Amino acid sequence: MTVETISLNRSHGGMQGVYKHASRETGTDMTFSAYVPPHQGGAKLPVVWYLSGLTCTHANVTEKGEYRKTCAELGLIFVAPDTSPRGEAVPGDPAGAYDFGLGAGFYVDATQPPFSRNYRMWSYLTEELPELVAALFPVDFKRQSILGHSMGGHGALTMALSHPDRYRAASAFSPIAAPSQVPWGIKALGGYLGDNKEAWRKHDAVALIEDGARFSDLLVDVGDADPFLDQQLRPELLERACAKADIPLNLRRQNGYDHSYYFISTFMADHLRWHAARLKA
Amino acid sequence: MTVETISLNRSHGGMQGVYKHASRETGTDMTFSAYVPPHQGGAKLPVVWYLSGLTCTHANVTEKGEYRKTCAELGLIFVAPDTSPRGEAVPGDPAGAYDFGLGAGFYVDATQPPFSRNYRMWSYLTEELPELVAALFPVDFKRQSILGHSMGGHGALTMALSHPDRYRAASAFSPIAAPSQVPWGIKALGGYLGDNKEAWRKHDAVALIEDGARFSDLLVDVGDADPFLDQQLRPELLERACAKADIPLNLRRQNGYDHSYYFISTFMADHLRWHAARLKA
Repeated sequence: MTVETISLNRSHGGMQGVYKHASRETGTDMTFSAYVPPHQGGAKLPVVWYLSGLTCTHANVTEKGEYRKTCAELGLIFVAPDTSPRGEAVPGDPAGAYDFGLGAGFYVDATQPPFSRNYRMWSYLTEELPELVAALFPVDFKRQSILGHSMGGHGALTMALSHPDRYRAASAFSPIAAPSQVPWGIKALGGYLGDNKEAWRKHDAVALIEDGARFSDLLVDVGDADPFLDQQLRPELLERACAKADIPLNLRRQNGYDHSYYFISTFMADHLRWHAARLKA
Repeated sequence: MTVETISLNRSHGGMQGVYKHASRETGTDMTFSAYVPPHQGGAKLPVVWYLSGLTCTHANVTEKGEYRKTCAELGLIFVAPDTSPRGEAVPGDPAGAYDFGLGAGFYVDATQPPFSRNYRMWSYLTEELPELVAALFPVDFKRQSILGHSMGGHGALTMALSHPDRYRAASAFSPIAAPSQVPWGIKALGGYLGDNKEAWRKHDAVALIEDGARFSDLLVDVGDADPFLDQQLRPELLERACAKADIPLNLRRQNGYDHSYYFISTFMADHLRWHAARLKA
């Protein structure tokens, strides 16, 4: 297990690193960032996983997410992986679109060729990367939580609902709440998982809840000026599913905010405090 | 006076805009960003000018500077201009180097051809852009302050020392404190202002102080892991000049920090509070 340190910078009292490693799951090099807050020698810290949206790499939230100050205050490690395998050998969208293939892994293990070889983001994030993070950083794996944005909000919700005992908190910015029912999701889940929509249900937060998945409580922020709200995100479907399943959902419609990191960075500290309260309970 | 709005996003309760306009000073289009915090209708707000370093545009601090939360709390407008004129018609470094020409205006009015036509960043920032900002935003021009990073720290210090009645606070991250004495500055001042070193003294914070310029007090942060500290920044020369001139200088050597926005963003809130205390005094 060889890990290359791409960069390491002191910030807000801790260390922000960017790392690259050869992934067994994706068959490619994968890059991720990790912030380790200031801490006492020997301490084991909670870890927050952050999953990014379409077109993003680790860099978007690392540069624009404004999470370090709060992670330093709360003593949280913050890990931000990439959104897909990358490289010349990795197949992408046949038409080069932004919403499938490179930068658009949708946090599934693809079953359809030619994507099934490399697009294994579910296993990468739930198995391989935690092993790596455990080897590199002082993480207390009994205290993990997960959040994400847009496609990554979808990933965070589906991973939390599938592993309610692993993650002690989960939240999302502008998640794709029901990918089986919206254009982005239909394209991606069809492309990676094939036409059998039963296989999609494990990668759809609303369907997971309908099928019995539960989580302690969820925080979701959406901007009411988000151009994707009505056609792609559809938080009302999550609201309805959570209500029916008695999952406490704190869904906040933030006035005037859009889909950008200007929105995410505004409420990042709120989310981290929500996570810390549950990670330290 | 036509201004094009490139983007406008709600963030931390206020509005982050990016704007483009045709500049009379540079003879080019110029882009800048401005954050307007939440405020009461009719209010006039203090404005903080932020000057960026070599290779930067408005975008670096706008994306990575982590200033919006504090500006929202303190009620500060934050304006970040570009670092040079740009465009195919604008002459740059003959060898394409990063430290002269495009992205490296050094905040002077060039006197040497072929740069004198476009490289008029001093007049652009002290005359033209304030007029534009006054027309666009609810600014109280009796309450202005200035800060910057590296080449922009140089710009902020020289502008403050040259206009002690205009700016009510000034600070810098990692400033080029004495450009006449270091490689970056010798190349830039020579290229823009010619061989007569007397002309350089108005664009050198240490020389300005030696020649009698004064300012109420200054805050300067440098990282002790900054690779440019000893050869290009030389804060000890500023320290000596301020001591001799009885200018109170709060020079902080921050342990383990480098020259990046990971450093700047860590101490940005400190600087803004320093400014606010003086802007609101």
